[in-house]
Order: sequence, then structure tokens, then C-alpha cells
Amino acid sequence: MSQAKWDELFSDSAREMKPSPIRELLRYISNPEIISFAGGNPDPFIFPVSEFAAGAIVLGRNGMEILQYGATEGYTPLRKFLSKWMAPRMGRETEPNELLITSGSQQGMDLLCAALLNPGDAVIVEDPTYPGAIHTMRNRGAQFLTVPCDADGMRTDLLPEVIETAQNDGKKIKFIYSIVNFQNPSGATLTTARRKELLDIASKYGLLIFEDDPYGHLRYEGGHEPTIFSMDQEGRVVYACSFSKILAPGVRVAWIVGPPNIIRKMVMIKQGADMCTSVISQALVASYCDDGYMDEFLPRIISHYAKKRDAMAAAFARHLPSDAQFSVPKGGFFFWVKLPGIDAKELFMKGIEHGVAFVNGPAFFANGGGTDCFRTCFTFAQPSDLDEGARRLAEAIADQRGE
Amino acid sequence: MSQAKWDELFSDSAREMKPSPIRELLRYISNPEIISFAGGNPDPFIFPVSEFAAGAIVLGRNGMEILQYGATEGYTPLRKFLSKWMAPRMGRETEPNELLITSGSQQGMDLLCAALLNPGDAVIVEDPTYPGAIHTMRNRGAQFLTVPCDADGMRTDLLPEVIETAQNDGKKIKFIYSIVNFQNPSGATLTTARRKELLDIASKYGLLIFEDDPYGHLRYEGGHEPTIFSMDQEGRVVYACSFSKILAPGVRVAWIVGPPNIIRKMVMIKQGADMCTSVISQALVASYCDDGYMDEFLPRIISHYAKKRDAMAAAFARHLPSDAQFSVPKGGFFFWVKLPGIDAKELFMKGIEHGVAFVNGPAFFANGGGTDCFRTCFTFAQPSDLDEGARRLAEAIADQRGE
Repeated sequence: MSQAKWDELFSDSAREMKPSPIRELLRYISNPEIISFAGGNPDPFIFPVSEFAAGAIVLGRNGMEILQYGATEGYTPLRKFLSKWMAPRMGRETEPNELLITSGSQQGMDLLCAALLNPGDAVIVEDPTYPGAIHTMRNRGAQFLTVPCDADGMRTDLLPEVIETAQNDGKKIKFIYSIVNFQNPSGATLTTARRKELLDIASKYGLLIFEDDPYGHLRYEGGHEPTIFSMDQEGRVVYACSFSKILAPGVRVAWIVGPPNIIRKMVMIKQGADMCTSVISQALVASYCDDGYMDEFLPRIISHYAKKRDAMAAAFARHLPSDAQFSVPKGGFFFWVKLPGIDAKELFMKGIEHGVAFVNGPAFFANGGGTDCFRTCFTFAQPSDLDEGARRLAEAIADQRGE
Repeated sequence: MSQAKWDELFSDSAREMKPSPIRELLRYISNPEIISFAGGNPDPFIFPVSEFAAGAIVLGRNGMEILQYGATEGYTPLRKFLSKWMAPRMGRETEPNELLITSGSQQGMDLLCAALLNPGDAVIVEDPTYPGAIHTMRNRGAQFLTVPCDADGMRTDLLPEVIETAQNDGKKIKFIYSIVNFQNPSGATLTTARRKELLDIASKYGLLIFEDDPYGHLRYEGGHEPTIFSMDQEGRVVYACSFSKILAPGVRVAWIVGPPNIIRKMVMIKQGADMCTSVISQALVASYCDDGYMDEFLPRIISHYAKKRDAMAAAFARHLPSDAQFSVPKGGFFFWVKLPGIDAKELFMKGIEHGVAFVNGPAFFANGGGTDCFRTCFTFAQPSDLDEGARRLAEAIADQRGE
């Protein structure tokens, strides 16, 4: 069939759809000549391979159960573990009808959007934010309102005006999306005072908060901020977390916690989306957790990544030009770099020529912006490559500036 | 928050959403007092537990790769296996850009609908059809046109009128959905002549065909019909198959084959839906397949299920009243029973009282119908229970009829 025939058959959203920019970048990782600061990938050398593989004994022991269809809500032993393990963060043990296991955090976000968004509904996101969130929300028909971030996270002081202007324009806003800890890409953590303010604003304007927290466990210094979920008295916070960054993304197991009203809708949507998350994956993750490895390994992962963060900070201080602006994140995976006057998209191509990859700024801005910024991930590249990558990056910058 | 507040926040489709009826029925399976002919579950006693578990060696050997994010398109070794293994059915080895690994067949269907359907677009489904398809398609905004089935599958002779009437009413039809082999629930297989006719009709009216084939490998007698995909010269057939019924549903691994144009869109939607299917699950399935177990076990599964089919046929002949109409399927999982004058929903409740569960007819009709029909699955219940379940079913029928 001709392209024109296909375009007649495609849905409106599919016809215009673009690939998620982050996923497209992953192909550079497979080129061994290029040092990748691009994708937000964990270090494969820190994966607890043998400990995870040891859990495979469950395949033989409980095979008749875990090879069968599972409950859409998730594998019971894993649900029980999470309810207890997350209690210190959630403020209490969550009830079974507040918890849904998802096929990665991305699915949690997709199901939440399906439960809330009609095409054209608005969501409020941080500027900059995670490109995968922009992709998923856009696929579900979202329009974006953006609020800038500073070193303390989302500028909650600007929120009321953003909301009122949009509502006066007749826009229907459904939720505020915030990556609360070590934000992707800015690295900023929302302060406790701003968390409270965010909750007050959501309450005042009748909105939900989607508190996305894939990096919260990976704090390299300082103390944890309380979750917004734990402060919420009205049941308007949906909290998402994942095994991707603290165990392994290949398992595709994450979880989402929220008021039973919305979890029930998400379960029904998940029935139609994939029935249930791989029971095999869930059982292996549950084995790993129940055998105590989660608590044993997390400190090792934190110490490993803290060193890599320090190595990237030192390499940037050594090699990048003096006008490069970045701050050292207290956790998570990323540095966010601003180079006044640079075109990040052109710099990306120069970077590839010089053998280093990153993600350029515009990918993180839902409504445009970030042309002089880029994100670098310090967890994936090997220690010796952190310095060399920064050196190549400096070369690429000098090359682009004609120095 | 109050229910009214929630209803303001929910999307239109979520507000009205009902749970998938099949998933809701699964809770009866967990009651050991009830013999379940309800869910379409494989027999857990035929799962190749130790052979599948043996593949876990791959977790230790390739852990650094399979614990990492995977390609959205799927795990390369599994994609290579499927391209070759499916060649006899597909008519040729499929190209990499024609194949997408999905998190179960349900996800393939969901992604296809997202690629094609605007809210209100129409799809043509068989009457009766798989309730999970109705649930997924409805969640994606589908309206339904239905075409009856007989012993030779979809009544293709009635299709042109259905299409023309709908098009004259201004409806935009996107695809025709057919479960081609041992249809769920009718058990019928579409004849080769009708497959050709279906393709001609799709071509004439500019529609796609979604050829769903979860049961095709499970043929207990007779020879295989050619796939519609293999007859297609214009690239208008999307073919779906799954490991759920031939290996184990708990792996949540299936695949979909189609023209590169639509597969590319589905990949982009999957990026936003779950990034990639569990690499752990895919790697374990690939190990199992590459070690030759798929070809070794399939004949055993077929022979095991053929015996169970025969046992249910004998039990029905022995116990059911003489006006019960059913035919013995040549493959798949299901008997479809018509009992003139019975109310299947009431019979279902009587069945639970008497200790037997099935799925009542209306669940299979997208636009209503099937009140005097029900589906029984013969693969899940244990051999001794097939006769006892039929006896209880007969009791429930007599009870309802006041005999």
C-alpha cells in the first residue's frame, strides 16, 4: 500500500508521531568508538548478576504458578515486600488496593495518562523534564504547561499563575508531574517547603500530583526529603518508583502507589494493555528482594555511583571551558550543563565526530527551549572513560566555537 | 477526594470503564471447591518447568546484557529464532522491520489499536469473539461492527454489506479482526476459501486485516490452513502469535508481524508504553527455544490437550441434556455450547452454586447477544475434573430449568 493509504488508516496521533529521542540515541551506545554520556543507563558492571541469577531457583520451585497468567495487580510476594520496604518513604504500609506493579515506570505513566487524559487535556511538567514522559504523555493526547526549575526543583511560586492563565484560556488541567529527587535532567531535588506548597496548590486548584521518583534511593550525600505522598491528607498524590535504577532495567518491573479510586482504573486499563507484568520477572525480583539482596546491594550501588559522580565533576572541572555552568547533583544519574551561546544540536554532531555522546537540551523541553544546554549521564560510562569523555567534549566545544 | 471530584478528573473512557470480564472470572479459579472451565488458562501440569528453568543459566552468562534496557523491537536472539521458526507459516522468513516482540498478545493488539484508531473509529469483529479484544479495542475508542461465525469461521459473504452500510452511515472502518484458527470462543477455523475472500474484501474496501493466531499451533487433527499473511500481496495483514498457549503465559512474550509502515508506528507507541518487553523473560524464552525445547515439547502439549478435548467431548455427551448444541473443535482450548432458552448469566450463578465455572455468552458479543450460550475451556481442569465438571454443569442446567 502507498504511504497515502497508510496515512488514511493511521490514527491522528500515530500519523504525526516521532520516536522518543532518548531511545533513538541508544544506538550510539552500541558504537564502541563513542563514549556515551547519553542514555540514562545503569552501569552493567554493578548489576548483581550472580545474586539475581541465584533467584532463578524459584523458576523450578514455583514454576507451575509463575508460568501461569498472573494477577493484573502484580505478584503477591512482590507486592507484600514493597508495601513493607517502602513504608518508611510512604509514611505507612500501603494497602493492597493502593499498589499496582507495572511493566516499568513508563507503563505506570502511560496507564495514569490513559485514566486521566482526554485528547487536548493539559498536564503541568517541569522545564526541563524527562523526554520519555513528554513522549508518553503526548501519545496519550496531552498538551503541556511548563514551569521552570531552579536548584530547589520546580518553581512552585510560578505555578498559580500558570494554572490560572491556562484555566482562563479554557484548558482542562489534570495533574502536575514532578520528578522530585535528583530530577532528570536538572539534578535538582524539590525542597520540603516546596513539596508542601505544591500539595497546597494542587488542593486549591483540584489537581492531582504525579510524584515520579526513580532516583530517590540513589542519594550520595545529605538526608532524604519526605515524599509528597506521605504529606498528602486528601488522596491526590500518585507516587511511582522502579527497580530500573536500583536493580536492573531489563526486568521491566516498577510500581505505582495511589488512591484506590485511580489504581482501580489503572488496573482495568492494564488488563487491556498487557494483562499482567511478566510473572517470571516479578518472581525473580521478589526472590532477590526476599533474599535480602536489595538492602545489601543498595549501599554498594550508591557508593559506586557517588565515585563516578565525583569523577565526572572532576573531569568537567579539568576540561570544560570556564563558561560551562553545571552543579554537582547530590544523587541520581545526571549532570545538566549550560554553555551560553552554544547550539546543543550542532554540538551533539560535533561530539559524535570527537567520539562522545550526550543528550542535547531541547529534548527535555515540552514546549521548546534548552538550545544551549545538554545532559550527561555519569553512571553508564566506565571510570577511565569519564575523564576521556570530558576531554573529547571540551574538544568538540572548542571545535564548534572555531577555537 | 469525593467520587464526584474523581469523575471530573477521569478521562471519558476511564469514567465508564468496566473490568475485562475474563479477568474478573479468574478469581473463581482460586476457589478449590469450583471446577473451572472459565479462563483460557493452559494446564500448569504440562508447563515444561525444569526445561524452562534450565535456561536460567543465561542470566548468569549474559547478565550484563539482559539486565540492561533492551531494544524496543525485542531481544535479537529471540527475533532471529522467530523469523526462522515461523517461516513455514509466514510463507518466508520475515525481515527485522516486520517483526515486533510484545508483552503478550494483548499488548500487540493495544499498540495496533493505538496506531490506527481515533475515538469512534470502527473495527469489524467476529460475533462471538474474544472478550479481551473487545476490552482492549473499546479502551482505545473503538466502535464495533459484527459479523456472525459458522462452522467455517467468519461469514465473509456478509462482510460487504456490513462494510457498505457502515460506510454509508459515515463510519470510518480501520480493520477486520479475525481469530483464524480454533476461534475463541466458537472453536471454528476459517477455511482457505474464506481467507482468500477476506483478503479480497479488505483490498476492495481499503481495510487492514488483524489475523490473531494464538491457537494455530495447537491442532489436534487435520492439516494447517495457510495464514492470510502468507497470501497477502499488498501488505495489509498484521499477524499476531504468542508463547502464552504453546509455552507459558507467565512469560508475557508474544510477537506481531506486519508491514514495516505499521510496525514502525507500533515501536514508537511501545517506547511510550513500556520501553521494551522484559529482557529477562525474552532471554529465558530464547534460551528455551534455541535449546530445541519448543520443537520437542509442542507435540507433547498437542497430544496432552487432544486427550483433554476428547475427555470433555465424552463428558458433555454423557451428561449434558440432549438439546445442548456444541461441536468438537479440531484444536485450541474451547467448546462453545448453545442451550436454547437458557439464560447463560443465571446459569453461571447456578454453576457456581453447583461448583463449576464457565464464561457466559454475552461476554463474547461486542454489541450484545449470546444470552443462551457459554464457553468451556478444556485445557486447565484436570482430567478427573472434566467429567465431574460436566456432571455439575448438567445439574446446574436441570436446577435452573426447575427439573
